[in-house]
Amino acid sequence: MTETKKTTIVLFSGEYDKAMAAYIIANGAAAYDHEVTIFHTFWGLNALRKEEQIPVNKGFLEKMFGKMMPRGADKMGISKMNFAGFGPKMIKHVIQKHNAMTLPQLIELAQEQDIKLVACTMTMDLLGLQQEELMEGIEYAGVAAYLADAEDGNVDLFI
Amino acid sequence: MTETKKTTIVLFSGEYDKAMAAYIIANGAAAYDHEVTIFHTFWGLNALRKEEQIPVNKGFLEKMFGKMMPRGADKMGISKMNFAGFGPKMIKHVIQKHNAMTLPQLIELAQEQDIKLVACTMTMDLLGLQQEELMEGIEYAGVAAYLADAEDGNVDLFI
Amino acid sequence: MTETKKTTIVLFSGEYDKAMAAYIIANGAAAYDHEVTIFHTFWGLNALRKEEQIPVNKGFLEKMFGKMMPRGADKMGISKMNFAGFGPKMIKHVIQKHNAMTLPQLIELAQEQDIKLVACTMTMDLLGLQQEELMEGIEYAGVAAYLADAEDGNVDLFI
Repeated sequence: MTETKKTTIVLFSGEYDKAMAAYIIANGAAAYDHEVTIFHTFWGLNALRKEEQIPVNKGFLEKMFGKMMPRGADKMGISKMNFAGFGPKMIKHVIQKHNAMTLPQLIELAQEQDIKLVACTMTMDLLGLQQEELMEGIEYAGVAAYLADAEDGNVDLFI
Repeated sequence: MTETKKTTIVLFSGEYDKAMAAYIIANGAAAYDHEVTIFHTFWGLNALRKEEQIPVNKGFLEKMFGKMMPRGADKMGISKMNFAGFGPKMIKHVIQKHNAMTLPQLIELAQEQDIKLVACTMTMDLLGLQQEELMEGIEYAGVAAYLADAEDGNVDLFI
Repeated sequence: MTETKKTTIVLFSGEYDKAMAAYIIANGAAAYDHEVTIFHTFWGLNALRKEEQIPVNKGFLEKMFGKMMPRGADKMGISKMNFAGFGPKMIKHVIQKHNAMTLPQLIELAQEQDIKLVACTMTMDLLGLQQEELMEGIEYAGVAAYLADAEDGNVDLFI
Protein backbone atom coordinates (compact mmCIF):
# COMPACT_ATOMS: atom_id res chain seq x y z
CA MET A 1 0.00 0.00 0.00
CA THR A 2 1.53 3.29 -1.03
CA GLU A 3 0.37 6.46 0.59
CA THR A 4 -0.53 9.48 -1.49
CA LYS A 5 2.15 12.15 -1.32
CA LYS A 6 1.13 15.69 -0.57
CA THR A 7 2.36 19.08 -1.71
CA THR A 8 1.00 22.22 -0.03
CA ILE A 9 2.04 25.67 -1.18
CA VAL A 10 1.24 29.03 0.41
CA LEU A 11 1.19 31.61 -2.37
CA PHE A 12 1.70 34.92 -0.55
CA SER A 13 3.46 36.84 -3.33
CA GLY A 14 1.67 38.78 -6.00
CA GLU A 15 4.36 38.63 -8.63
CA TYR A 16 4.02 36.94 -12.02
CA ASP A 17 7.32 35.08 -11.83
CA LYS A 18 6.83 33.82 -8.25
CA ALA A 19 3.29 32.69 -9.04
CA MET A 20 4.67 30.91 -12.14
CA ALA A 21 7.18 29.05 -9.96
CA ALA A 22 4.40 28.06 -7.55
CA TYR A 23 2.15 26.77 -10.31
CA ILE A 24 4.97 24.96 -12.14
CA ILE A 25 5.93 23.07 -8.97
CA ALA A 26 2.25 22.40 -8.19
CA ASN A 27 1.48 21.09 -11.68
CA GLY A 28 4.61 18.96 -11.61
CA ALA A 29 3.65 17.47 -8.26
CA ALA A 30 0.11 16.75 -9.50
CA ALA A 31 1.56 15.00 -12.54
CA TYR A 32 3.47 12.75 -10.10
CA ASP A 33 0.22 11.95 -8.29
CA HIS A 34 0.69 14.22 -5.33
CA GLU A 35 -2.39 15.66 -3.71
CA VAL A 36 -1.73 19.35 -4.23
CA THR A 37 -3.12 22.46 -2.54
CA ILE A 38 -2.27 26.08 -3.27
CA PHE A 39 -3.37 28.35 -0.45
CA HIS A 40 -3.59 31.93 -1.78
CA THR A 41 -3.14 34.62 0.84
CA PHE A 42 -2.37 38.37 0.80
CA TRP A 43 -1.09 39.43 -2.67
CA GLY A 44 -1.27 35.86 -3.96
CA LEU A 45 -5.05 36.28 -4.00
CA ASN A 46 -4.63 38.51 -7.06
CA ALA A 47 -3.82 35.45 -9.16
CA LEU A 48 -7.41 34.32 -8.59
CA ARG A 49 -9.11 37.62 -9.49
CA LYS A 50 -11.42 37.82 -12.49
CA GLU A 51 -10.25 40.20 -15.19
CA GLU A 52 -13.47 42.13 -15.48
CA GLN A 53 -14.56 44.61 -12.81
CA ILE A 54 -17.34 43.07 -10.73
CA PRO A 55 -19.79 45.52 -9.19
CA VAL A 56 -19.79 44.90 -5.43
CA ASN A 57 -20.50 47.14 -2.47
CA LYS A 58 -17.29 48.18 -0.73
CA GLY A 59 -15.99 50.78 1.64
CA PHE A 60 -13.56 53.44 0.42
CA LEU A 61 -10.35 51.69 1.53
CA GLU A 62 -11.45 48.38 0.05
CA LYS A 63 -12.19 50.13 -3.25
CA MET A 64 -8.71 51.66 -3.22
CA PHE A 65 -7.06 48.30 -2.56
CA GLY A 66 -9.19 46.86 -5.35
CA LYS A 67 -7.99 49.51 -7.80
CA MET A 68 -4.34 49.31 -6.76
CA MET A 69 -4.03 45.52 -6.98
CA PRO A 70 -3.71 43.69 -10.32
CA ARG A 71 -6.92 42.14 -11.60
CA GLY A 72 -5.95 38.55 -12.37
CA ALA A 73 -2.82 36.57 -13.17
CA ASP A 74 -2.18 38.20 -16.52
CA LYS A 75 -1.88 41.66 -14.95
CA MET A 76 0.70 40.84 -12.29
CA GLY A 77 4.15 42.45 -12.38
CA ILE A 78 7.44 40.60 -11.98
CA SER A 79 9.73 40.66 -8.95
CA LYS A 80 12.84 41.76 -10.83
CA MET A 81 13.53 44.25 -13.60
CA ASN A 82 10.00 45.59 -13.68
CA PHE A 83 11.13 48.68 -15.64
CA ALA A 84 7.90 50.48 -16.46
CA GLY A 85 6.16 47.20 -17.20
CA PHE A 86 8.87 46.25 -19.67
CA GLY A 87 9.87 43.19 -17.61
CA PRO A 88 6.52 41.36 -17.71
CA LYS A 89 6.27 41.95 -21.48
CA MET A 90 9.72 40.45 -21.96
CA ILE A 91 8.87 37.44 -19.82
CA LYS A 92 5.62 36.84 -21.68
CA HIS A 93 7.43 37.24 -24.98
CA VAL A 94 10.07 34.63 -24.11
CA ILE A 95 7.38 32.31 -22.76
CA GLN A 96 5.62 32.46 -26.12
CA LYS A 97 8.85 32.10 -28.05
CA HIS A 98 9.84 28.98 -26.11
CA ASN A 99 6.35 27.46 -26.25
CA ALA A 100 6.22 27.53 -22.46
CA MET A 101 2.98 28.14 -20.56
CA THR A 102 1.79 31.55 -19.38
CA LEU A 103 0.52 31.96 -15.83
CA PRO A 104 -3.18 31.90 -16.86
CA GLN A 105 -2.49 28.64 -18.77
CA LEU A 106 -0.70 27.15 -15.75
CA ILE A 107 -3.71 28.02 -13.54
CA GLU A 108 -6.06 26.41 -16.06
CA LEU A 109 -3.90 23.27 -16.09
CA ALA A 110 -3.93 23.23 -12.29
CA GLN A 111 -7.71 23.21 -12.33
CA GLU A 112 -7.78 20.40 -14.92
CA GLN A 113 -5.41 18.40 -12.69
CA ASP A 114 -7.73 18.90 -9.70
CA ILE A 115 -5.24 20.90 -7.73
CA LYS A 116 -7.12 22.43 -4.81
CA LEU A 117 -7.01 26.21 -5.15
CA VAL A 118 -7.90 27.88 -1.88
CA ALA A 119 -8.48 31.56 -1.13
CA CYS A 120 -7.64 32.67 2.41
CA THR A 121 -10.84 34.16 3.81
CA MET A 122 -9.09 36.22 6.49
CA THR A 123 -6.92 38.14 4.04
CA MET A 124 -9.84 38.43 1.54
CA ASP A 125 -11.61 40.24 4.33
CA LEU A 126 -8.62 42.46 5.06
CA LEU A 127 -8.13 43.43 1.41
CA GLY A 128 -11.85 43.77 0.78
CA LEU A 129 -12.05 41.04 -1.87
CA GLN A 130 -15.39 39.28 -2.28
CA GLN A 131 -16.14 35.82 -3.67
CA GLU A 132 -17.85 37.30 -6.77
CA GLU A 133 -14.53 38.89 -7.73
CA LEU A 134 -12.57 35.62 -7.71
CA MET A 135 -12.65 32.85 -10.31
CA GLU A 136 -15.03 29.88 -10.17
CA GLY A 137 -14.16 26.44 -8.85
CA ILE A 138 -12.00 27.49 -5.93
CA GLU A 139 -12.39 26.83 -2.20
CA TYR A 140 -12.51 29.26 0.71
CA ALA A 141 -10.76 28.51 3.99
CA GLY A 142 -8.58 29.80 6.80
CA VAL A 143 -5.29 28.97 8.46
CA ALA A 144 -6.71 25.89 10.24
CA ALA A 145 -7.51 24.22 6.91
CA TYR A 146 -4.07 25.15 5.61
CA LEU A 147 -2.36 23.55 8.61
CA ALA A 148 -4.45 20.38 8.28
CA ASP A 149 -3.12 20.00 4.72
CA ALA A 150 0.42 21.11 5.47
CA GLU A 151 1.12 19.06 8.60
CA ASP A 152 1.03 15.79 6.63
CA GLY A 153 2.71 17.28 3.58
CA ASN A 154 5.82 15.90 1.92
CA VAL A 155 6.60 19.23 0.30
CA ASP A 156 5.49 22.44 2.10
CA LEU A 157 6.54 25.73 0.58
CA PHE A 158 5.91 29.42 1.25
CA ILE A 159 6.26 31.44 -1.94
CA MET B 1 0.53 7.71 21.74
CA THR B 2 0.42 10.68 19.44
CA GLU B 3 3.57 12.56 18.67
CA THR B 4 3.69 16.31 19.00
CA LYS B 5 3.63 18.00 15.61
CA LYS B 6 6.24 20.64 14.87
CA THR B 7 6.20 23.87 12.89
CA THR B 8 9.46 25.72 12.30
CA ILE B 9 9.54 29.03 10.47
CA VAL B 10 12.56 31.03 9.35
CA LEU B 11 11.56 34.70 9.31
CA PHE B 12 14.09 36.32 7.00
CA SER B 13 11.91 39.14 5.68
CA GLY B 14 11.56 42.49 7.36
CA GLU B 15 8.17 43.42 5.98
CA TYR B 16 5.06 43.94 8.04
CA ASP B 17 2.80 41.79 5.86
CA LYS B 18 5.25 38.89 5.58
CA ALA B 19 5.89 38.92 9.32
CA MET B 20 2.10 38.96 9.85
CA ALA B 21 1.76 35.85 7.67
CA ALA B 22 4.54 34.14 9.64
CA TYR B 23 2.97 34.95 13.01
CA ILE B 24 -0.57 34.03 11.87
CA ILE B 25 0.60 30.59 10.73
CA ALA B 26 2.69 30.19 13.89
CA ASN B 27 -0.16 31.15 16.22
CA GLY B 28 -2.55 28.88 14.31
CA ALA B 29 -0.14 25.96 14.60
CA ALA B 30 0.34 26.59 18.33
CA ALA B 31 -3.46 26.60 18.77
CA TYR B 32 -3.45 23.12 17.19
CA ASP B 33 -0.84 21.96 19.69
CA HIS B 34 2.16 22.13 17.42
CA GLU B 35 5.52 22.87 18.98
CA VAL B 36 6.36 26.10 17.16
CA THR B 37 9.63 27.94 16.59
CA ILE B 38 10.21 31.17 14.71
CA PHE B 39 13.85 31.66 13.86
CA HIS B 40 14.46 35.35 13.11
CA THR B 41 17.38 36.06 10.81
CA PHE B 42 18.56 39.03 8.73
CA TRP B 43 15.74 41.63 8.38
CA GLY B 44 13.33 39.43 10.33
CA LEU B 45 15.32 40.38 13.44
CA ASN B 46 13.72 43.82 13.25
CA ALA B 47 10.41 42.35 14.42
CA LEU B 48 12.12 41.65 17.76
CA ARG B 49 13.65 45.10 18.25
CA LYS B 50 12.56 47.26 21.14
CA GLU B 51 10.93 50.53 20.14
CA GLU B 52 13.10 52.76 22.26
CA GLN B 53 16.70 53.48 21.37
CA ILE B 54 19.00 51.50 23.63
CA PRO B 55 22.41 53.04 24.32
CA VAL B 56 25.01 50.46 23.32
CA ASN B 57 28.58 50.76 22.08
CA LYS B 58 28.79 50.17 18.36
CA GLY B 59 31.06 50.80 15.42
CA PHE B 60 30.11 53.30 12.71
CA LEU B 61 28.65 50.77 10.25
CA GLU B 62 26.64 49.01 12.95
CA LYS B 63 25.24 52.38 14.02
CA MET B 64 24.20 53.10 10.44
CA PHE B 65 22.49 49.73 10.08
CA GLY B 66 20.79 50.40 13.39
CA LYS B 67 19.48 53.73 12.16
CA MET B 68 18.40 52.45 8.75
CA MET B 69 16.46 49.44 9.99
CA PRO B 70 12.98 49.72 11.54
CA ARG B 71 12.89 49.62 15.33
CA GLY B 72 10.29 46.96 16.11
CA ALA B 73 7.32 45.30 14.45
CA ASP B 74 5.16 48.40 14.38
CA LYS B 75 7.70 50.30 12.29
CA MET B 76 8.12 47.76 9.48
CA GLY B 77 7.06 48.63 5.91
CA ILE B 78 5.00 46.37 3.68
CA SER B 79 6.23 44.42 0.66
CA LYS B 80 3.74 45.88 -1.80
CA MET B 81 2.37 49.36 -2.43
CA ASN B 82 4.59 51.02 0.14
CA PHE B 83 3.88 54.46 -1.34
CA ALA B 84 5.55 56.89 1.04
CA GLY B 85 4.38 54.87 4.02
CA PHE B 86 0.79 55.04 2.82
CA GLY B 87 0.61 51.23 2.43
CA PRO B 88 1.37 50.31 6.09
CA LYS B 89 -1.12 52.90 7.32
CA MET B 90 -3.82 51.43 5.08
CA ILE B 91 -3.05 47.91 6.25
CA LYS B 92 -3.14 48.94 9.91
CA HIS B 93 -6.36 50.83 9.29
CA VAL B 94 -8.11 47.81 7.75
CA ILE B 95 -6.75 45.54 10.49
CA GLN B 96 -8.38 47.79 13.07
CA LYS B 97 -11.58 48.07 11.07
CA HIS B 98 -11.92 44.29 10.78
CA ASN B 99 -10.96 43.67 14.39
CA ALA B 100 -7.98 41.65 13.22
CA MET B 101 -4.70 41.60 15.14
CA THR B 102 -1.77 43.90 14.48
CA LEU B 103 1.73 42.50 14.25
CA PRO B 104 2.71 43.58 17.79
CA GLN B 105 -0.46 41.86 19.09
CA LEU B 106 0.36 38.70 17.11
CA ILE B 107 3.85 38.65 18.62
CA GLU B 108 2.40 39.07 22.11
CA LEU B 109 -0.01 36.20 21.48
CA ALA B 110 2.88 34.07 20.25
CA GLN B 111 4.69 34.65 23.54
CA GLU B 112 1.56 33.79 25.52
CA GLN B 113 1.27 30.56 23.52
CA ASP B 114 4.89 29.66 24.33
CA ILE B 115 6.05 29.85 20.76
CA LYS B 116 9.83 29.77 20.81
CA LEU B 117 11.13 33.05 19.38
CA VAL B 118 14.77 32.76 18.40
CA ALA B 119 17.17 35.45 17.24
CA CYS B 120 19.94 34.27 14.91
CA THR B 121 23.20 35.21 16.62
CA MET B 122 25.26 35.14 13.44
CA THR B 123 23.16 37.77 11.65
CA MET B 124 22.79 39.81 14.86
CA ASP B 125 26.55 40.03 14.78
CA LEU B 126 26.60 41.01 11.09
CA LEU B 127 23.97 43.72 11.53
CA GLY B 128 25.45 44.92 14.81
CA LEU B 129 22.36 44.17 16.91
CA GLN B 130 22.93 43.48 20.61
CA GLN B 131 20.78 41.51 23.05
CA GLU B 132 19.87 44.68 24.97
CA GLU B 133 18.17 46.01 21.84
CA LEU B 134 15.85 43.03 21.42
CA MET B 135 12.72 42.20 23.42
CA GLU B 136 12.73 40.04 26.55
CA GLY B 137 11.88 36.34 26.67
CA ILE B 138 13.51 35.28 23.44
CA GLU B 139 16.26 32.75 22.79
CA TYR B 140 19.57 33.15 20.99
CA ALA B 141 20.90 30.45 18.67
CA GLY B 142 22.54 29.65 15.36
CA VAL B 143 21.88 27.56 12.29
CA ALA B 144 22.62 24.26 14.09
CA ALA B 145 19.77 24.83 16.54
CA TYR B 146 17.47 25.80 13.66
CA LEU B 147 18.27 22.58 11.82
CA ALA B 148 17.70 20.45 14.93
CA ASP B 149 14.17 21.89 15.11
CA ALA B 150 13.47 21.85 11.39
CA GLU B 151 14.66 18.35 10.54
CA ASP B 152 11.82 16.77 12.52
CA GLY B 153 9.31 19.42 11.51
CA ASN B 154 5.93 18.74 9.95
CA VAL B 155 5.73 22.24 8.53
CA ASP B 156 9.00 24.04 7.65
CA LEU B 157 8.71 27.43 5.99
CA PHE B 158 11.11 30.18 4.90
CA ILE B 159 9.36 33.54 4.89
CA MET C 1 20.18 1.88 11.07
CA THR C 2 19.78 5.61 10.75
CA GLU C 3 18.45 7.07 7.55
CA THR C 4 20.22 9.99 5.91
CA LYS C 5 18.36 13.25 6.44
CA LYS C 6 17.67 15.40 3.43
CA THR C 7 17.53 19.17 2.89
CA THR C 8 16.27 20.51 -0.44
CA ILE C 9 16.22 24.23 -1.17
CA VAL C 10 14.74 26.02 -4.17
CA LEU C 11 16.74 29.20 -4.69
CA PHE C 12 14.42 31.42 -6.73
CA SER C 13 15.66 34.81 -5.51
CA GLY C 14 18.53 36.68 -7.05
CA GLU C 15 19.52 38.72 -4.04
CA TYR C 16 22.85 38.50 -2.22
CA ASP C 17 21.35 38.28 1.26
CA LYS C 18 18.71 35.66 0.38
CA ALA C 19 21.29 33.54 -1.45
CA MET C 20 23.55 33.87 1.62
CA ALA C 21 20.74 32.55 3.84
CA ALA C 22 20.17 29.64 1.45
CA TYR C 23 23.86 28.71 1.36
CA ILE C 24 24.34 29.11 5.13
CA ILE C 25 21.43 26.72 5.84
CA ALA C 26 22.66 24.35 3.12
CA ASN C 27 26.24 24.29 4.43
CA GLY C 28 24.97 23.83 7.98
CA ALA C 29 22.80 20.90 6.94
CA ALA C 30 25.69 19.29 5.05
CA ALA C 31 27.87 19.65 8.16
CA TYR C 32 25.20 17.65 10.04
CA ASP C 33 25.35 14.94 7.37
CA HIS C 34 22.22 15.87 5.51
CA GLU C 35 22.09 15.10 1.81
CA VAL C 36 21.65 18.63 0.46
CA THR C 37 20.40 19.94 -2.88
CA ILE C 38 20.04 23.56 -3.98
CA PHE C 39 17.82 23.86 -7.02
CA HIS C 40 18.51 27.21 -8.72
CA THR C 41 15.63 28.61 -10.74
CA PHE C 42 14.72 32.01 -12.20
CA TRP C 43 16.90 34.75 -10.65
CA GLY C 44 18.64 32.25 -8.38
CA LEU C 45 20.47 31.02 -11.49
CA ASN C 46 22.55 34.21 -11.37
CA ALA C 47 24.42 32.85 -8.36
CA LEU C 48 25.86 30.20 -10.68
CA ARG C 49 26.93 32.52 -13.50
CA LYS C 50 30.60 32.88 -14.38
CA GLU C 51 32.00 36.37 -13.88
CA GLU C 52 33.51 36.71 -17.33
CA GLN C 53 31.36 37.22 -20.42
CA ILE C 54 31.16 33.98 -22.37
CA PRO C 55 30.67 34.35 -26.12
CA VAL C 56 27.53 32.38 -27.04
CA ASN C 57 24.97 32.76 -29.81
CA LYS C 58 21.76 34.30 -28.51
CA GLY C 59 18.69 36.09 -29.75
CA PHE C 60 18.14 39.77 -28.99
CA LEU C 61 15.91 39.26 -25.91
CA GLU C 62 18.23 36.66 -24.43
CA LYS C 63 21.14 39.07 -24.88
CA MET C 64 19.19 41.78 -23.06
CA PHE C 65 18.34 39.46 -20.17
CA GLY C 66 21.98 38.45 -20.07
CA LYS C 67 23.09 42.09 -19.82
CA MET C 68 20.47 43.06 -17.24
CA MET C 69 21.08 40.18 -14.83
CA PRO C 70 24.08 40.10 -12.47
CA ARG C 71 26.98 37.97 -13.62
CA GLY C 72 27.71 35.73 -10.63
CA ALA C 73 27.20 35.74 -6.88
CA ASP C 74 29.51 38.65 -6.20
CA LYS C 75 27.47 40.99 -8.41
CA MET C 76 24.06 40.39 -6.86
CA GLY C 77 22.20 43.20 -5.07
CA ILE C 78 20.56 42.90 -1.67
CA SER C 79 16.84 42.76 -0.96
CA LYS C 80 16.78 45.69 1.46
CA MET C 81 18.42 49.11 1.56
CA ASN C 82 19.99 48.75 -1.88
CA PHE C 83 20.67 52.50 -2.06
CA ALA C 84 22.66 52.96 -5.23
CA GLY C 85 24.66 49.83 -4.53
CA PHE C 86 25.60 51.12 -1.10
CA GLY C 87 23.83 48.24 0.66
CA PRO C 88 25.83 45.37 -0.88
CA LYS C 89 29.07 47.20 -0.12
CA MET C 90 28.06 47.61 3.52
CA ILE C 91 27.09 43.96 3.79
CA LYS C 92 30.38 42.83 2.25
CA HIS C 93 32.26 45.19 4.52
CA VAL C 94 30.65 43.82 7.69
CA ILE C 95 31.13 40.25 6.45
CA GLN C 96 34.85 40.93 6.14
CA LYS C 97 34.99 42.75 9.46
CA HIS C 98 33.33 39.86 11.30
CA ASN C 99 35.40 37.21 9.52
CA ALA C 100 32.18 35.74 8.11
CA MET C 101 32.03 34.13 4.66
CA THR C 102 31.08 35.96 1.48
CA LEU C 103 28.59 34.39 -0.90
CA PRO C 104 31.27 33.19 -3.36
CA GLN C 105 33.09 31.55 -0.40
CA LEU C 106 29.85 29.91 0.78
CA ILE C 107 29.28 28.51 -2.73
CA GLU C 108 32.83 27.17 -2.81
CA LEU C 109 32.30 25.52 0.59
CA ALA C 110 29.05 24.00 -0.68
CA GLN C 111 30.93 22.39 -3.55
CA GLU C 112 33.61 21.07 -1.18
CA GLN C 113 30.88 19.57 0.99
CA ASP C 114 29.36 17.82 -2.06
CA ILE C 115 26.12 19.77 -1.92
CA LYS C 116 24.30 19.10 -5.17
CA LEU C 117 23.96 22.39 -7.06
CA VAL C 118 21.31 22.12 -9.75
CA ALA C 119 20.39 24.61 -12.48
CA CYS C 120 16.76 24.49 -13.62
CA THR C 121 16.88 23.83 -17.36
CA MET C 122 13.40 25.22 -18.05
CA THR C 123 14.18 28.65 -16.65
CA MET C 124 17.69 28.63 -18.19
CA ASP C 125 15.88 28.26 -21.49
CA LEU C 126 13.44 31.09 -20.68
CA LEU C 127 16.20 33.49 -19.61
CA GLY C 128 18.50 32.45 -22.42
CA LEU C 129 21.28 31.15 -20.18
CA GLN C 130 23.53 28.46 -21.63
CA GLN C 131 25.64 25.84 -19.85
CA GLU C 132 28.88 27.52 -20.95
CA GLU C 133 27.87 30.60 -18.93
CA LEU C 134 27.42 28.74 -15.64
CA MET C 135 30.11 27.44 -13.31
CA GLU C 136 31.61 23.95 -13.54
CA GLY C 137 30.56 20.96 -11.43
CA ILE C 138 26.83 21.63 -11.31
CA GLU C 139 23.93 19.48 -12.50
CA TYR C 140 21.12 20.29 -14.90
CA ALA C 141 17.57 19.15 -14.24
CA GLY C 142 13.89 20.05 -14.23
CA VAL C 143 10.99 20.13 -11.80
CA ALA C 144 10.61 16.33 -11.79
CA ALA C 145 14.11 15.88 -10.37
CA TYR C 146 13.44 18.61 -7.81
CA LEU C 147 10.28 16.86 -6.62
CA ALA C 148 12.05 13.50 -6.38
CA ASP C 149 14.52 15.11 -3.96
CA ALA C 150 11.99 17.23 -2.09
CA GLU C 151 9.29 14.65 -1.48
CA ASP C 152 11.51 12.69 0.89
CA GLY C 153 13.07 15.79 2.37
CA ASN C 154 13.24 16.63 6.07
CA VAL C 155 13.72 20.30 5.38
CA ASP C 156 12.21 21.77 2.17
CA LEU C 157 12.53 25.50 1.66
CA PHE C 158 11.69 28.00 -1.09
CA ILE C 159 13.96 31.02 -0.88
